[in-house]
Amino acid sequence: MCRWLAYSGTPVLLEELIFKPTHSLIDQSLHSRLGVETTNGDGFGVGWYAEQDIPALYKSTEPAWNDRNLRELARNIRAGLILAHIRASTGTPAQQTNCHPFRYGRWLWMHNGSIARFPEVKRELTLAIDPTLYADIEGSTDSETFFFLAVTLGLEHDPPGAVESAVGLIERVGRSRGIKHPMQMTVAISDGQRVWAFRYSSEGRSRSLFYSTKMTTLRALYPDNPVLHNLSDETRLVVSEPLGDLAGAWNNVPESSYGVIHHGQDELRKFTPRPS
Amino acid sequence: MCRWLAYSGTPVLLEELIFKPTHSLIDQSLHSRLGVETTNGDGFGVGWYAEQDIPALYKSTEPAWNDRNLRELARNIRAGLILAHIRASTGTPAQQTNCHPFRYGRWLWMHNGSIARFPEVKRELTLAIDPTLYADIEGSTDSETFFFLAVTLGLEHDPPGAVESAVGLIERVGRSRGIKHPMQMTVAISDGQRVWAFRYSSEGRSRSLFYSTKMTTLRALYPDNPVLHNLSDETRLVVSEPLGDLAGAWNNVPESSYGVIHHGQDELRKFTPRPS
Amino acid sequence: MCRWLAYSGTPVLLEELIFKPTHSLIDQSLHSRLGVETTNGDGFGVGWYAEQDIPALYKSTEPAWNDRNLRELARNIRAGLILAHIRASTGTPAQQTNCHPFRYGRWLWMHNGSIARFPEVKRELTLAIDPTLYADIEGSTDSETFFFLAVTLGLEHDPPGAVESAVGLIERVGRSRGIKHPMQMTVAISDGQRVWAFRYSSEGRSRSLFYSTKMTTLRALYPDNPVLHNLSDETRLVVSEPLGDLAGAWNNVPESSYGVIHHGQDELRKFTPRPS
Amino acid sequence: MCRWLAYSGTPVLLEELIFKPTHSLIDQSLHSRLGVETTNGDGFGVGWYAEQDIPALYKSTEPAWNDRNLRELARNIRAGLILAHIRASTGTPAQQTNCHPFRYGRWLWMHNGSIARFPEVKRELTLAIDPTLYADIEGSTDSETFFFLAVTLGLEHDPPGAVESAVGLIERVGRSRGIKHPMQMTVAISDGQRVWAFRYSSEGRSRSLFYSTKMTTLRALYPDNPVLHNLSDETRLVVSEPLGDLAGAWNNVPESSYGVIHHGQDELRKFTPRPS
Repeated sequence: MCRWLAYSGTPVLLEELIFKPTHSLIDQSLHSRLGVETTNGDGFGVGWYAEQDIPALYKSTEPAWNDRNLRELARNIRAGLILAHIRASTGTPAQQTNCHPFRYGRWLWMHNGSIARFPEVKRELTLAIDPTLYADIEGSTDSETFFFLAVTLGLEHDPPGAVESAVGLIERVGRSRGIKHPMQMTVAISDGQRVWAFRYSSEGRSRSLFYSTKMTTLRALYPDNPVLHNLSDETRLVVSEPLGDLAGAWNNVPESSYGVIHHGQDELRKFTPRPS
Repeated sequence: MCRWLAYSGTPVLLEELIFKPTHSLIDQSLHSRLGVETTNGDGFGVGWYAEQDIPALYKSTEPAWNDRNLRELARNIRAGLILAHIRASTGTPAQQTNCHPFRYGRWLWMHNGSIARFPEVKRELTLAIDPTLYADIEGSTDSETFFFLAVTLGLEHDPPGAVESAVGLIERVGRSRGIKHPMQMTVAISDGQRVWAFRYSSEGRSRSLFYSTKMTTLRALYPDNPVLHNLSDETRLVVSEPLGDLAGAWNNVPESSYGVIHHGQDELRKFTPRPS
Repeated sequence: MCRWLAYSGTPVLLEELIFKPTHSLIDQSLHSRLGVETTNGDGFGVGWYAEQDIPALYKSTEPAWNDRNLRELARNIRAGLILAHIRASTGTPAQQTNCHPFRYGRWLWMHNGSIARFPEVKRELTLAIDPTLYADIEGSTDSETFFFLAVTLGLEHDPPGAVESAVGLIERVGRSRGIKHPMQMTVAISDGQRVWAFRYSSEGRSRSLFYSTKMTTLRALYPDNPVLHNLSDETRLVVSEPLGDLAGAWNNVPESSYGVIHHGQDELRKFTPRPS
Repeated sequence: MCRWLAYSGTPVLLEELIFKPTHSLIDQSLHSRLGVETTNGDGFGVGWYAEQDIPALYKSTEPAWNDRNLRELARNIRAGLILAHIRASTGTPAQQTNCHPFRYGRWLWMHNGSIARFPEVKRELTLAIDPTLYADIEGSTDSETFFFLAVTLGLEHDPPGAVESAVGLIERVGRSRGIKHPMQMTVAISDGQRVWAFRYSSEGRSRSLFYSTKMTTLRALYPDNPVLHNLSDETRLVVSEPLGDLAGAWNNVPESSYGVIHHGQDELRKFTPRPS
């Protein structure tokens, strides 16, 4: 199991998200409250959109709490769209090519959860990936396979549809081998403009996922909190675990649903795997 | 805070100590029960006496639970005198030169605990180290400084006396700067023949330390346990935390005392810092 | 390009092979004379047969010349059958799962060279691997794919035949895509009893490979050399580059051939890819 | 021996300096032409001035040519004052705390060369460091000791004077122990506004150092080169080795001298160690 956060809004230093909150991602890496594992020490990654077409990545197999470079970068890199992930491996090695977020062109992808009994279904799922993408698979995780399935199934044109199709495929392949609950997931995706965040599991008992309350509402609730006044109305966070204890700040993403964060009104919709 | 074990007895594969027990050192690295920190993920080290005059060391800054090489070595290296340590840093960087055990000639040293407000006393303590040893200090920890102080004060000739003198010196220097409780420690030392294990703290509330019950007694208690029958009468373990729940197997090392494990009757003695 | 050595004979400390010779593998990692690249700093690995059924592995992505653990282990591990490899990547990431030797059961495999335009043929070659082996592929190199093809094609029963079949398959797939010279290789294989060493390339201009002269002959040539007198008659080395300048000690493995080192008379035979 | 570069001028992406030039620092890490060692694979570091008061650092013990994070960061971080260093150790371990640039407040420092027979003089030199700085020493290199000596001797107020005093002290201490040529150095220092670059050795045969020709002159020489037209008149580089073969672009820093790069006219002055 892993922990992640996705941020979209007023450009902030990475450290504002990763180090400073009371129950920051770094704190979660040592003492996760809601995760299946309390320690998330099998590598981490941060992706952000900077001046290049393709987003920047920083990944490491050191535990996040020990990484001096992460601390330096977090203090010096400012971005308005950030995805960060700390990993607790479900079996595959701790190596940079297994760290999230995964990237394809402008797209970033991170996943908490797993494809059940992945070694048994890995080959069949990998064969379903577009052959022209095959050589782009660098690591050995279920999460990366899932990502390239979604790319194969149209991620660039219809992200929610592609994820629904990929999950449908994974469930079909898994069930054909007698796997009762093939998929457990929260997923975040971005193209640099929008963020999609999904919560789903075949068994209907998905990993935790929260989104932040609208800034206008939060400011009304806490008129004296200076942090909230520096953030634009559009600023939004989606997280595996709340970053602090501010009452009213965090809302549970319902089972089998996904949110879209973009310019204008954010949305929350139903997630339904598409049979393949 | 850290966790460690010292083993002396019938040669065993490292994995018998490090991976296989219910509450093995690897398990403790993720879920310590008695440590100040539950996660010990800031590097580890194993020292063992093989065919060379100086003992062998394997150290890594990866969390022990992720280190594939450790798993390989543990399955293939057999030794009769083993010291193993998992580190939870009290501030100094996670780097191999800060991992225990530290080595000087045939001597190995590991420490759980800390010298209080070490940055303030580091220079004065370092100046008390024999100038000819100065260039041998490779890392930046309090534990290594403590070790070289003990070497300076006669470790090779009278290990308990040298540790008592080093602690006396550290307490004097600390108290001269208003530090109330300068020393917190469990320490294990070996020269390849004997093992000394110390438990002490200036405040009289020391980190946990346990020694295993005599094999003859354990075998009488558990006549049907095959593991116990493969180990010689002289086999003994000293550990920060019990490796399992076998009733009667583990004994608390009392406050302000140390044990000596050697051929013949093992001993438990009082530890009294010597004023310097 | 990479450098490797395979040793079979009187048990020696790893350091006798890896560190001590004038032009040791460590020296080659910094200053290869015969390699395509002068620096081989993209990780390394050592495999040896110890007391377990499956051989032991130590792999690291640090340059071999900097790895303190390698130095420690080399001084303390003694074995009679050793494979060691230093890597200069041809594109895939420096990570432990890409370091040689690769292992399958009792089998070790290392490769110098490459499958030409591997990203283009990777999927087709991977599909030819036995599906039950698929999940055992941990890294992303051409060398590991080549290994699992050989396992699929009978490595355990007829190692030279399996390599000839794997190369035949790789050449067929490559040529079907217009690749003129699909294979460049020296390969070493062992099952813990025997060592096979291959030299071949589709273009007939293969990477260098040498085998050591018979110990009885070397001792006759150098009756006063004490090192040679400590090694059994059966001791043999196969290397990418000679480890020193002893005249008469090293013999070129001819193009398109392979050697077998085993109890009794070692053999040198012709290597002919088998059309698939 | 090491290789380094210091850049001051129009903000550029790090990759423009570190990866793109024909004979970039990355190329030098594998194939140095002018260094004592051809391979500089014992870690590296980059320091740059961003929005914080203290400069940012990225350091790694991986060879620079393999570091995927460096490639990512270099493509996404833009700065106007950059110091970069690749390390070839003269004996101290490859660990992040031994990587240059070293930092103290706003100050960065990097060094190519060595203090002769450093283990013999280390203690005496370290004792000459201001006791209040002692605990800031994190690594074990001569270069960091040299840096803190310069800080002790007034770096913040008179950088060239402090370096001259530090070298004077190192030479006195070395010569008192019979060391003929105690110092070999090129050094770069910055406070975020200015850069100082020194070339000196006790024997008068110093490591190579070059500074770039004035942009106005270069543009007159190469009126059609677009790169030169994007850089301000004040842009200047100081490097261990020229980054390319542009005739007229690189000038040798004379023996026993130092340059100052700042707003206004850059200067080249004589360097004379001050007796201590």
